[in-house]
Amino acid sequence: MPSRVLIEGGWVFAGEGDGPFQVVEDGVVAVEGERIAYVGPRDGLDPAWEPTRRIDARDKAVLPGLVNAHTHHAMSLLRGYADDVPLMPWLERHIWPAEAHLTGDDVYWGTLLAIAESLLAGVTTFADMYFFMDRVAQAVVETGVRAHLSRGLIGVAPGADQALAEGKALVAAFQGAGDGRIRCALAPHAPYTCPPPFLARVLEAAAALGCPIHTHLAETRAEVEQIRAQYGKSPIRHFADLGVFQHPTLAAHCVHVDADDIAILAEHGVAVAHNPISNCKLASGIAPVPDLLAAGVTVGLASDGAASTNHLDLFEEMRLAASLQKVSRYDATVLPAWQVLRMATVGGARALGFDRLGCLAPGYLADIVVLDLRAPHLRPRHDLTSLVVYSAKASDVDTVLVHGKVLVDGGELLTVDLERVEHEVEERARRLARLARGGAADGTP
Amino acid sequence: MPSRVLIEGGWVFAGEGDGPFQVVEDGVVAVEGERIAYVGPRDGLDPAWEPTRRIDARDKAVLPGLVNAHTHHAMSLLRGYADDVPLMPWLERHIWPAEAHLTGDDVYWGTLLAIAESLLAGVTTFADMYFFMDRVAQAVVETGVRAHLSRGLIGVAPGADQALAEGKALVAAFQGAGDGRIRCALAPHAPYTCPPPFLARVLEAAAALGCPIHTHLAETRAEVEQIRAQYGKSPIRHFADLGVFQHPTLAAHCVHVDADDIAILAEHGVAVAHNPISNCKLASGIAPVPDLLAAGVTVGLASDGAASTNHLDLFEEMRLAASLQKVSRYDATVLPAWQVLRMATVGGARALGFDRLGCLAPGYLADIVVLDLRAPHLRPRHDLTSLVVYSAKASDVDTVLVHGKVLVDGGELLTVDLERVEHEVEERARRLARLARGGAADGTP
Repeated sequence: MPSRVLIEGGWVFAGEGDGPFQVVEDGVVAVEGERIAYVGPRDGLDPAWEPTRRIDARDKAVLPGLVNAHTHHAMSLLRGYADDVPLMPWLERHIWPAEAHLTGDDVYWGTLLAIAESLLAGVTTFADMYFFMDRVAQAVVETGVRAHLSRGLIGVAPGADQALAEGKALVAAFQGAGDGRIRCALAPHAPYTCPPPFLARVLEAAAALGCPIHTHLAETRAEVEQIRAQYGKSPIRHFADLGVFQHPTLAAHCVHVDADDIAILAEHGVAVAHNPISNCKLASGIAPVPDLLAAGVTVGLASDGAASTNHLDLFEEMRLAASLQKVSRYDATVLPAWQVLRMATVGGARALGFDRLGCLAPGYLADIVVLDLRAPHLRPRHDLTSLVVYSAKASDVDTVLVHGKVLVDGGELLTVDLERVEHEVEERARRLARLARGGAADGTP
Repeated sequence: MPSRVLIEGGWVFAGEGDGPFQVVEDGVVAVEGERIAYVGPRDGLDPAWEPTRRIDARDKAVLPGLVNAHTHHAMSLLRGYADDVPLMPWLERHIWPAEAHLTGDDVYWGTLLAIAESLLAGVTTFADMYFFMDRVAQAVVETGVRAHLSRGLIGVAPGADQALAEGKALVAAFQGAGDGRIRCALAPHAPYTCPPPFLARVLEAAAALGCPIHTHLAETRAEVEQIRAQYGKSPIRHFADLGVFQHPTLAAHCVHVDADDIAILAEHGVAVAHNPISNCKLASGIAPVPDLLAAGVTVGLASDGAASTNHLDLFEEMRLAASLQKVSRYDATVLPAWQVLRMATVGGARALGFDRLGCLAPGYLADIVVLDLRAPHLRPRHDLTSLVVYSAKASDVDTVLVHGKVLVDGGELLTVDLERVEHEVEERARRLARLARGGAADGTP
């Protein structure tokens, strides 16, 4: 018999689709196995439905699990390693020299750290593009989270063939793994790192494997200028012409896009992962999210890697997403609270191609966050959606379910040995910094 | 004999002035009475110095208390009351109708809520401009925090004379109260609400009382246009010409300022309170903080009221401040982590006119925050300043001292009865919403 979890007495953020939430006061969510069986007022639940576990959600909000639509989780090892540095020197002088020394074990432990941080912050699903991805998949299987995984493919690098082979092997080995919690993609890194002949090989493999694409697109002005100089068109037109978008595509960033680009994205059903903090911190720009949404483009919210964003907190990303649009357009009404929360939940779920995920509704996968509202920063309670989006913090997350299983219980991580992870990460981060700086064994640069 | 508190074993953010911090590993801070006696490595402390209380700061960071340089604390009663609304309808249709029903008791309880939230988030000092300010002063005296208080003065309103009388009475009654923790100012609200004749009366009173000025300046483009149309000059030139800046002045916002305005601010030693979230959420604009700093203007960080910002979290304000400058200038190097943290500490302390406040150094007032770094989002520890500014959260605040006294001890508020405050606030917020909407007794609008 499947487990039956009853979450009862909270403000339940109910309702399918893209619109404002139906916030049910003193509502319940009934979970059967990995799916939601009922959402609504208490007296609507069949009295014969007997739970095997009850979760008290009084003074709490019950939300769909948050979806981090683009990250490089293992880069948490490089959190705070090189800040306040422009993108190219950041990559060339700091990040790449450190990454050159990464091992599969490093990636495994760095990913566990990021999963721990994310779960504690209510993030139940993430889309990761990195390397040693079999070790990332291992961490996902072990911890019970949901993920969209891809091996980053840089066509201009010496190891391109090997990377493509690894990318294909990942899809073959892990597509649908972890009880369906894992979806795999192929990940041509970006237009400026993947020349057309290499890209053609990636797309051929995607067709053969029937898998989607995850890529970076139009992140910086420099990229757009470079692609225009090289191919006479925008990065998005360039990828469209090469046939990339004939595959379901998740495109991170899309900061520097014009009306023509947006029309292409909409026409081909390309989903966008919006990374507000990373785009600020690396001085990339502000993505035109309201225009993307207005054109019907699916947009998910994302953190990017902790090396550029420094945390994996989608509550803060929600607020920054709203802030950036309002201030840059001089319009306080754009991207209201409910729309940002939809982006961080069902928007991301759709962007990653997970079916029946991201809403609290019967038949949906049971990825659920229970948020404790008993704190001074969450008083008074005029409007629950405003409160959750504009005032709540990652630290208010109390209980988290993924695929119907409780992974965080009253603030306690159940599937990660945090002490071990923190120890491993600290040791490995020091080793990387030492090696990258070519310094002495004591860490002196 | 004064109390002697020894904070030992943490990463201590030492060093006076505006530059990068000297982060001392395994450092100690010795507090004697209300001041800091010693900061530095453990073995530099006189072995004869015997503490009456020890605070274990291993795995913790020790920072100067954060200073919120501009807020309307009691507006926490209206948190989430009207979001995603442009400034003027926000004020005219939502905020003012609610404020019309505020009582002194409401302000007292709303302020206590904001003080509780702020203390738990490491904010030890705030600059408040509101009304019923004697009740705010009462809350400050009772809770032990530090504050810069002023009665907001709207010259064009019917109650202007009464307000000015209250403003003067506040200064007379509370200047230096609470063992010197309170500084009082007069607060002509803004150029567009204070005509020159009224302003002249305010300045005359300020001269007689020897007190500083707190005001709003150049918050929106509409304000600048209005003042230019009315007086043929910018709001800042206008206030300078009227003699406002002959008094020490704290000016909130200064979003829409040109080179001439910045030169005026620098020349007259006007301090600016920068409110990044509020300026975004109300779609006001992005203040040119790097230009202000480069010109030598003192800049503090601020939240504005929770009705527009929705929380009083200076950690998030620090990140947004950095993000906005980097992205709007396409320059990842502007406003680096240490500079933002200086703005949130000593910058604010100077802006509010508190002497020897905002740094961890001997002779400084002992307003100190101990931040617990044992969390996955605070691993690994490559760079402590980056970690604190870009990754730490309000919820990592463990222990807080103000004026040498422990007010938050291991996450527990010692001087606020939180349960009572939350109950009072919820009741009062509901009453205000009901009255403001002119609705039925059950709260139906």
